[in-house]
Amino acid sequence: MRFLHSKKYREEKQVFIVEGDKMVREAIESPMEVVQLYYCSGSSQEFESIGTLISEKEMKQISQLSSSSPSLAVVRPNEFSESLQTIAEKPLLILDSIRDPGNLGTIIRTADWFGIETILVSKDTVDCFNSKVVQSTMGSIFRVQISYRDLVPAMLELKKVEVPLFGAFMDGDSPEILSNVVKRGALVIGSESFGISDAVKREIDHSITIKKDGMGESLNAAVATSILLYQWSLSPRN
Amino acid sequence: MRFLHSKKYREEKQVFIVEGDKMVREAIESPMEVVQLYYCSGSSQEFESIGTLISEKEMKQISQLSSSSPSLAVVRPNEFSESLQTIAEKPLLILDSIRDPGNLGTIIRTADWFGIETILVSKDTVDCFNSKVVQSTMGSIFRVQISYRDLVPAMLELKKVEVPLFGAFMDGDSPEILSNVVKRGALVIGSESFGISDAVKREIDHSITIKKDGMGESLNAAVATSILLYQWSLSPRN
Repeated sequence: MRFLHSKKYREEKQVFIVEGDKMVREAIESPMEVVQLYYCSGSSQEFESIGTLISEKEMKQISQLSSSSPSLAVVRPNEFSESLQTIAEKPLLILDSIRDPGNLGTIIRTADWFGIETILVSKDTVDCFNSKVVQSTMGSIFRVQISYRDLVPAMLELKKVEVPLFGAFMDGDSPEILSNVVKRGALVIGSESFGISDAVKREIDHSITIKKDGMGESLNAAVATSILLYQWSLSPRN
Repeated sequence: MRFLHSKKYREEKQVFIVEGDKMVREAIESPMEVVQLYYCSGSSQEFESIGTLISEKEMKQISQLSSSSPSLAVVRPNEFSESLQTIAEKPLLILDSIRDPGNLGTIIRTADWFGIETILVSKDTVDCFNSKVVQSTMGSIFRVQISYRDLVPAMLELKKVEVPLFGAFMDGDSPEILSNVVKRGALVIGSESFGISDAVKREIDHSITIKKDGMGESLNAAVATSILLYQWSLSPRN
């Protein structure tokens, strides 16, 4: 059953994998469809009526965790059906080429905490249904919508409906300007190594920078995102 | 040379390993002692006068990275000699039982950005010279002092010299109270799974909480630390 983890299988079947009783339970409770559920004896009893009992050896074979969990679910995500105009009514996060699975997972988890419901990501961003991303979201993958698309046309559409576009750069205004963004707005974060790409940069209205008081060359992308989402959360929208 | 990475070897010799031209260069430029430097042909020329040329095959054997770098240095950290009274004159970070190497590395990197020079960590916190921690600090390991110690006696000493102790909890005041902490103060962050331990909790003067606007059960420990260090950086100390 190792094929469960191949990107090709997941893409063909349009499914992803979650592991561990807590994540499996969240999958069941989420609006997403649980296509298949495997559990070992010793796992949560509630899985018995809906899952397939397998041996620990079989679980080890299909698990991607260093120490396998007693349960695993194959989940089909909801289709993204809302128009850009609709999602633009709420605060948006835009990711330009995030490559590290742990960073993307942490960003999804933090976005969920701060009430961001939708993240637009460039097509070269790491697959959000990659098992490392999914596990590091700690369940937020079931709540935050991730939409892969060409960012420039999406940003042009957002500008048409007057959504202000903020971007994190090395030389910009204080993040405190985000406190004035009451509701509609989009925050763009660039890649770990190269920042925001030139084409995307051209569409950004406001540059913001997290001031450095010490040394160090940069902040981790997930850290920078979290700080800016926090600052934004202090606006009167809440 | 695989022994280089064993914790026992590192502890006996009191050294740690950094990999990659950028990190090796930072080690050379830092006040720490570079005990040994290995490089492959194709690495930075400046290493030739001080390092030992080895083959790529040998480098693969000693590297802990998935794709090995062309250079590796064995570094001896500086001894921690300052008294608690001295370090208490500047903002302090205190970590209670952080177990994930990536989290500790990211916290050290972020602390460096925000000008935190010293971090006190509980003795059960992951080894800061573990290779995953070192690499994820992105060079900040050379600038931020990490001191392993029993936290409760250290906190009692800090209280004696009137350092206010702040802790991140699930139910406390807004982080904005940190903006009033002009200079001296210590921020305590607890473990990923269990938060701040009971004994440490008892010594904390002010509880702070990052308000949740969405769903999700918790924030990643490095994310929470970063948000609070950012908020603290907005105080007039800067």
